[in-house]
Amino acid sequence: MFVTPYDVRFADVDNAGIFYYPRFFHAFHVAMEQWWDSIGRPYHVVIQEDKIGFPAVHIDSDFKIPVTFGDPVDIHVGIARIGTTSVTIRYRFVNRETNKVHCQADVVTACVNMDTFRPTPPPPHIRAALESILIRDDA
Amino acid sequence: MFVTPYDVRFADVDNAGIFYYPRFFHAFHVAMEQWWDSIGRPYHVVIQEDKIGFPAVHIDSDFKIPVTFGDPVDIHVGIARIGTTSVTIRYRFVNRETNKVHCQADVVTACVNMDTFRPTPPPPHIRAALESILIRDDA
Amino acid sequence: MFVTPYDVRFADVDNAGIFYYPRFFHAFHVAMEQWWDSIGRPYHVVIQEDKIGFPAVHIDSDFKIPVTFGDPVDIHVGIARIGTTSVTIRYRFVNRETNKVHCQADVVTACVNMDTFRPTPPPPHIRAALESILIRDDA
Amino acid sequence: MFVTPYDVRFADVDNAGIFYYPRFFHAFHVAMEQWWDSIGRPYHVVIQEDKIGFPAVHIDSDFKIPVTFGDPVDIHVGIARIGTTSVTIRYRFVNRETNKVHCQADVVTACVNMDTFRPTPPPPHIRAALESILIRDDA
Repeated sequence: MFVTPYDVRFADVDNAGIFYYPRFFHAFHVAMEQWWDSIGRPYHVVIQEDKIGFPAVHIDSDFKIPVTFGDPVDIHVGIARIGTTSVTIRYRFVNRETNKVHCQADVVTACVNMDTFRPTPPPPHIRAALESILIRDDA
Repeated sequence: MFVTPYDVRFADVDNAGIFYYPRFFHAFHVAMEQWWDSIGRPYHVVIQEDKIGFPAVHIDSDFKIPVTFGDPVDIHVGIARIGTTSVTIRYRFVNRETNKVHCQADVVTACVNMDTFRPTPPPPHIRAALESILIRDDA
Repeated sequence: MFVTPYDVRFADVDNAGIFYYPRFFHAFHVAMEQWWDSIGRPYHVVIQEDKIGFPAVHIDSDFKIPVTFGDPVDIHVGIARIGTTSVTIRYRFVNRETNKVHCQADVVTACVNMDTFRPTPPPPHIRAALESILIRDDA
Repeated sequence: MFVTPYDVRFADVDNAGIFYYPRFFHAFHVAMEQWWDSIGRPYHVVIQEDKIGFPAVHIDSDFKIPVTFGDPVDIHVGIARIGTTSVTIRYRFVNRETNKVHCQADVVTACVNMDTFRPTPPPPHIRAALESILIRDDA
């Protein structure tokens, strides 16, 4: 899986002192964009030149340990499944010191053509990229 | 279920012209707060005086029809289940004109004491409030 | 000025217990969109059919009294100035009980054609709308 | 000034294809937090151990060139002025390729004690940190 450090920010944490859960999904999305950056195909190129996007279709997510301001966390991004026109992205918020998983999400996305917004199989170079972080065993 | 109109805002919609999905969860949370307001027990009173909060533990969510800028939508909020120390909140984004469900989410929350952040059964007045929007049949 | 109630939300308030200031500007923008709604010309129609938008060019803003969770506030929206191709929108966060101004902002915007993103004089029906909340004396 | 790369994210850009301006202030705040990280005194330590915070009091900001998805930008953070109990933080969004300034903001903050929320002079180690990025000439 792709791993990127995430610094919990002042505005991530709510009045109860813990990470406001809707913001996890934004953090996950940004981590996915960072992965595209890391392989030399930034997400804006995927969207604008490849005309490929990945709108979410289904989310299954667990929040196990609250995240607080200053927690040393990494976001892990992997691909759990590649279907004909769907891609399941697996995200984890992992504590760098304890190695415990704060939360995780499986986001099933449709692979769509951005002009028509209709499902389409990922083009070969996109598919190869996704396969490079495919989780072989259910880890 | 509690129903509140939601006006899709300029900043909700992303560069692809559709609602950015992490923002649905914020919209849902705000709708839940509006429900507390509507029954005369604003969420800040629940949090600060009742010392009760509902952090998310598990989310199961479907996105069926993209939401675009200007779509006439309502958010529906109901309670799908009340356990000993857990509450499952059901949310729907419903088109006012077509009556179609754009997306829905079941958010399992823990009922916690805000001082200790430990699970606690909802106090009677909170439980009664939750029961007032309990979904009797799986609708 | 146009006045709309604003319910301070759980996620607006940061770990220090006060409104996170970048979110004021979003709240102001939403209030402006609500004003367009209120006059029967929703902002998505202005953007998509009139092809007119108002990107910010300059902001001058004061934060006087912190806003906390549960504060009863209204947002006031008026037009401070209409230039040839610019419009200055004045926003205020006002406490409904004390009538005190928590914060205010003058946002100078360019009136632009959304296809070319070039400055353009507001078309007559847009100008008339803006004039309906023009602040005659500096209030 | 402290310089940190900022990757424009999918959700930063609105339906008109440009950076939604309220999100600049969040990006600036995060850059300020990154600066605290970079000098080994993370902002959560400043807030929670030093009991010092910097709520915004006044903002003066210019938006000159729209920022679009994929633009190669840096955020520059410096201190424009240190008063007795106030600190003016200067932010710039600078294009890495053209060196042009997309937008800038001077954010006057109060230095406050986080327990009392009353103005206080910055303690010596905080003042020394701020002076390390003091802008000597108006650059």
